[in-house]
Amino acid sequence: MAVRAAVAGASGYAGGEVLRLLLAHPEVEIGALTANSNAGRPLGALQPHLFPLAGRVLEETTAEALAGHDVVFLALPHGQSAAVAEQLGPDVLVVDMGADFRLKDPADWERFYGSPHAGTWPYGLPELPGGRAALEGSRRIAVPGCYPTAVSLALWPAYAAGLAGPEAVIVAASGTSGAGKNPKTHLLGSEVMGSMSPYGVGGGHRHTPEMIQNLSAAAGEPVAVSFTPTLAPMSRGILATCSAAATPGVTADALRAAYEKAYADEPFVHLLPEGQWPATAAVHGSNSVQVQVAYDAAVGRIIVISAIDNLTKGTAGGAVQSMNIALGLPEELGLPTIGVAP
Amino acid sequence: MAVRAAVAGASGYAGGEVLRLLLAHPEVEIGALTANSNAGRPLGALQPHLFPLAGRVLEETTAEALAGHDVVFLALPHGQSAAVAEQLGPDVLVVDMGADFRLKDPADWERFYGSPHAGTWPYGLPELPGGRAALEGSRRIAVPGCYPTAVSLALWPAYAAGLAGPEAVIVAASGTSGAGKNPKTHLLGSEVMGSMSPYGVGGGHRHTPEMIQNLSAAAGEPVAVSFTPTLAPMSRGILATCSAAATPGVTADALRAAYEKAYADEPFVHLLPEGQWPATAAVHGSNSVQVQVAYDAAVGRIIVISAIDNLTKGTAGGAVQSMNIALGLPEELGLPTIGVAP
Amino acid sequence: MAVRAAVAGASGYAGGEVLRLLLAHPEVEIGALTANSNAGRPLGALQPHLFPLAGRVLEETTAEALAGHDVVFLALPHGQSAAVAEQLGPDVLVVDMGADFRLKDPADWERFYGSPHAGTWPYGLPELPGGRAALEGSRRIAVPGCYPTAVSLALWPAYAAGLAGPEAVIVAASGTSGAGKNPKTHLLGSEVMGSMSPYGVGGGHRHTPEMIQNLSAAAGEPVAVSFTPTLAPMSRGILATCSAAATPGVTADALRAAYEKAYADEPFVHLLPEGQWPATAAVHGSNSVQVQVAYDAAVGRIIVISAIDNLTKGTAGGAVQSMNIALGLPEELGLPTIGVAP
Amino acid sequence: MAVRAAVAGASGYAGGEVLRLLLAHPEVEIGALTANSNAGRPLGALQPHLFPLAGRVLEETTAEALAGHDVVFLALPHGQSAAVAEQLGPDVLVVDMGADFRLKDPADWERFYGSPHAGTWPYGLPELPGGRAALEGSRRIAVPGCYPTAVSLALWPAYAAGLAGPEAVIVAASGTSGAGKNPKTHLLGSEVMGSMSPYGVGGGHRHTPEMIQNLSAAAGEPVAVSFTPTLAPMSRGILATCSAAATPGVTADALRAAYEKAYADEPFVHLLPEGQWPATAAVHGSNSVQVQVAYDAAVGRIIVISAIDNLTKGTAGGAVQSMNIALGLPEELGLPTIGVAP
Repeated sequence: MAVRAAVAGASGYAGGEVLRLLLAHPEVEIGALTANSNAGRPLGALQPHLFPLAGRVLEETTAEALAGHDVVFLALPHGQSAAVAEQLGPDVLVVDMGADFRLKDPADWERFYGSPHAGTWPYGLPELPGGRAALEGSRRIAVPGCYPTAVSLALWPAYAAGLAGPEAVIVAASGTSGAGKNPKTHLLGSEVMGSMSPYGVGGGHRHTPEMIQNLSAAAGEPVAVSFTPTLAPMSRGILATCSAAATPGVTADALRAAYEKAYADEPFVHLLPEGQWPATAAVHGSNSVQVQVAYDAAVGRIIVISAIDNLTKGTAGGAVQSMNIALGLPEELGLPTIGVAP
Repeated sequence: MAVRAAVAGASGYAGGEVLRLLLAHPEVEIGALTANSNAGRPLGALQPHLFPLAGRVLEETTAEALAGHDVVFLALPHGQSAAVAEQLGPDVLVVDMGADFRLKDPADWERFYGSPHAGTWPYGLPELPGGRAALEGSRRIAVPGCYPTAVSLALWPAYAAGLAGPEAVIVAASGTSGAGKNPKTHLLGSEVMGSMSPYGVGGGHRHTPEMIQNLSAAAGEPVAVSFTPTLAPMSRGILATCSAAATPGVTADALRAAYEKAYADEPFVHLLPEGQWPATAAVHGSNSVQVQVAYDAAVGRIIVISAIDNLTKGTAGGAVQSMNIALGLPEELGLPTIGVAP
Repeated sequence: MAVRAAVAGASGYAGGEVLRLLLAHPEVEIGALTANSNAGRPLGALQPHLFPLAGRVLEETTAEALAGHDVVFLALPHGQSAAVAEQLGPDVLVVDMGADFRLKDPADWERFYGSPHAGTWPYGLPELPGGRAALEGSRRIAVPGCYPTAVSLALWPAYAAGLAGPEAVIVAASGTSGAGKNPKTHLLGSEVMGSMSPYGVGGGHRHTPEMIQNLSAAAGEPVAVSFTPTLAPMSRGILATCSAAATPGVTADALRAAYEKAYADEPFVHLLPEGQWPATAAVHGSNSVQVQVAYDAAVGRIIVISAIDNLTKGTAGGAVQSMNIALGLPEELGLPTIGVAP
Repeated sequence: MAVRAAVAGASGYAGGEVLRLLLAHPEVEIGALTANSNAGRPLGALQPHLFPLAGRVLEETTAEALAGHDVVFLALPHGQSAAVAEQLGPDVLVVDMGADFRLKDPADWERFYGSPHAGTWPYGLPELPGGRAALEGSRRIAVPGCYPTAVSLALWPAYAAGLAGPEAVIVAASGTSGAGKNPKTHLLGSEVMGSMSPYGVGGGHRHTPEMIQNLSAAAGEPVAVSFTPTLAPMSRGILATCSAAATPGVTADALRAAYEKAYADEPFVHLLPEGQWPATAAVHGSNSVQVQVAYDAAVGRIIVISAIDNLTKGTAGGAVQSMNIALGLPEELGLPTIGVAP
């Protein structure tokens, strides 16, 4: 019997991506599609790649429209998910692709988002220690941010194995779809093509406390994070370059062994062979993650680099993967593992 | 029972793309993978996106390596397919993604390729009139060129309906993967990013006689083709802008009606709603085709524009679609219809 | 004695480009910079590449602000230039980079722009027959559109020499800066990178009558134009692929000879050696134009391809070149001829 | 009287860029142009943007060809400069854009380059403390590497002011022209467009010891450098994200003050206003550098980000700037300060 799924925020990039994946999911039937300013328009005019849904007209995002589904994906601006979720019954699986329920510490939330904290939901990153158990049977899922997905998968094994010092330095490059389908001047093609630029420098990016939360949990002690995001001239993809001081006695072999152990059985995370480095093109459109590690003896640091597709594993793919776990379906069901390259 | 498929030329772009598709095909089991200069290397080093095959080592392209398969896909430089195909039995389905067996007229072949003609195989463009019938049960398939796929799908309905004059003018923009994985200076990222440039201007491109062949067949009389290909700063995609003088009495409605009729039941070809234009991003990584038509009354011309992914519908997707037909499988089996956008 | 220049619309792409060029012009001193919604902001926040002017604050576009200059460049939305120009005295050189004064036929204007025709000014394309004479001493200049610049320079020599039939078919690819610094969804980097798409298909683009005007003047008889613009994934550049039926008796040599004669003494237009084709990268940021010709004997057509930078030769460079002529300065003064490549 | 300049290695990216700049230099006359495998070909076929030199034929790189010039620019593979320089007299200014004479410590050279050390020449980064004095009157100049230029300009002021701890962590993104005009598969447009990837991870990049040399000199004590370069999908530009632990007592104001002091009188280095961040597009094709600083109190680190054009300030612009100083010409002569944006 099919799982009936609704998508709130179907006209944006996260909404479009979850629909792309759900259309290929053998157990899902697509129900209501809602939007705000685009309500009343056909999806084909807004998401022309979603041919099978081209004629579907977007509804207003209301409790009525979203009622009667087994799963509701929320792709809404932050601050809007709680009000919608409250109106959906406790038996409905609500998968929030926004930020509202990711952080455990209300003070973190308030400092970075400036509004009251809505709560904390089970966290949709199954590869973290205990990650799957937290999702099984859950009816509320907070999908991680795209940067925290890339960074946490890069660094948690080092922290869990006690190989990394308590201060991580992270520089990540993201494709422009990470900034959403927002018609802002600095996101115009003319501005971004041929250009690399940073933003949110100095600790201001809202994904920072989420990384700290994940890495501290893996380490069993507080981890500080220096995070600098940059905008790269590509539509999709995150390349996260993460490093930390190695703890005493770390060797290149021990580092590699920790990652081999962490990811030996993971269906989506690929520790690359030695000598091969991640590239975002290799995971374009897929739920796969590439990871590679290095130990720089000259400076005593470990460097871990990961590549994901920010819209797939970083958002909608992680959401569907978590949905599969919550509903007791095979975790990989309907999810592409192979990137569209070149 | 699974169809066992081999791929000769697995290290290039066409070979990689057919493997991407075959990995998602529920009836196919992947057998031998062969190469020339890359024989002996693991596929993961050459096609890092094909995670499930990362450890597979490429063999030399020999009759022995390719023996014992139900289907053999050839992704070889032109001129090499005939010798390989001869060594495969008549019961093996051989799908040639090269040019060798596309042209019917040996003189055309010799003029454009400068070598003896190897023959003509059933043509792998099922959407052409009679296209499916030619493929059913066949054990030899010549997959069309990427440009002829885009152009023929754009124009054959107009010619079949008698709406277009006998001289077509075509300007097409292609992503750089159309030029293959060839380490040539003019294909470097530094050269192509931020640049548009033409090549093969004035009738010299080898895909020209193939377009003429297809359009003349649809028209029932000789069609002349002025074809100018251009290289666009993107990895994938072809946008073909095709026009011809309208025959007397043509109206915008008649033009649209001809295309609605031609493509009403086609699973992969999408005539867009009026006012919406093709974009290669919408079909990125998919087997879909976007088509739109216009009648310019001021100059008495019809303009038809199509968008395809040159590696998918333009090469490997068309190959798998044709394989499905030849083997009696559902035509859409294993083929993505939804592009990876944005 | 320095020429004192003001720029109205200094926050947009055309305004920024004319400032880039004027800053390198040895005879120009930059005066007032005005804007509409961006008035009151420092230029450095809007045009960060214009370091020497970073601290200059934009004024409102008023007659007072623009008074007291020798030259005023208008980079305004169409329909706004006439009101501004009226308030500037007849001795002030007004260079309009918008469309308002390009067309001679009021009916053309009204059909394509839907408003009353403001008039016709001397046309800023010196390379056209009689082009320089029309500009010498003038105090009003209508800078051509970017597409008409590329297309007219490609085709006028063929028409002037009687080599081209009366129907031109043109497909041009433009970088996204041609669409202006407009925060619209379809111009987002996420949408345009990796994608080619057409717009204004079927004769609707506003630059069409301007091309017809120029080519008909060169031919001495009406020329019809089928024009299809496409958006390419690059910030700058236009590649125009132009063709027409060859008139009887045309040869490849005659065609080439016509272009050699037309451009032998032009400082900015480069007829490329045989075998070499234009590429927009080669003229990036320069006022140069690359042109190449071909005769396709199989279809009896001439093909002429040109490459320009839409913001330089296509807008601001053409404006400065025309200013130089109008003021009696050396035509090339302050203008870059060498593109920034790769 | 004109300075007569030769360029050895004129067919590559560094050679092409230095010619672009020299063509605009009012005191330079361009003499011999030499190459290796491209000797005998016209420059126009290899550097089509250099219109004024299109007909110049490349000579073999020999002492004879390079004799009789005031300045010789060497754009050669590393290891080849010493032999050429020896044959040029001590009065000829030799500007080496390769790596051969940058490092002071022979052991560093041998470890990273695996060949005997050729020596050390005055270092062409005038903005370093004592940088100009070292160049004045010199007849040998080692032009810095592109990454060391970006990184040293980002961090030396912090080290000179005692604000940064002895371990710097640097992640830099470079356009593909930094890898040269080498026809290698991983540099194909198809591979790099839409992709970010690292290389030389873990301390292996050859520019690392050069950064250590510069930063240690500024600090007056050894500085360790963790350097990770990444390849970005753009032709030009480097964005360097540099951080280090702040020394005790550092404040955001003190950090900013140090940079204001360091760069107050620099013609090419622009400390951006607070709130504005570097972008490589803003310096595209120019000799300018954008720098911005931040202090992240939560982790006690300073972050400094710089943007340069790797071919201009990072190679050929730095070379011409240094030549100007060595010859007693105005330092900015002939160098563009304004980027080609968008």
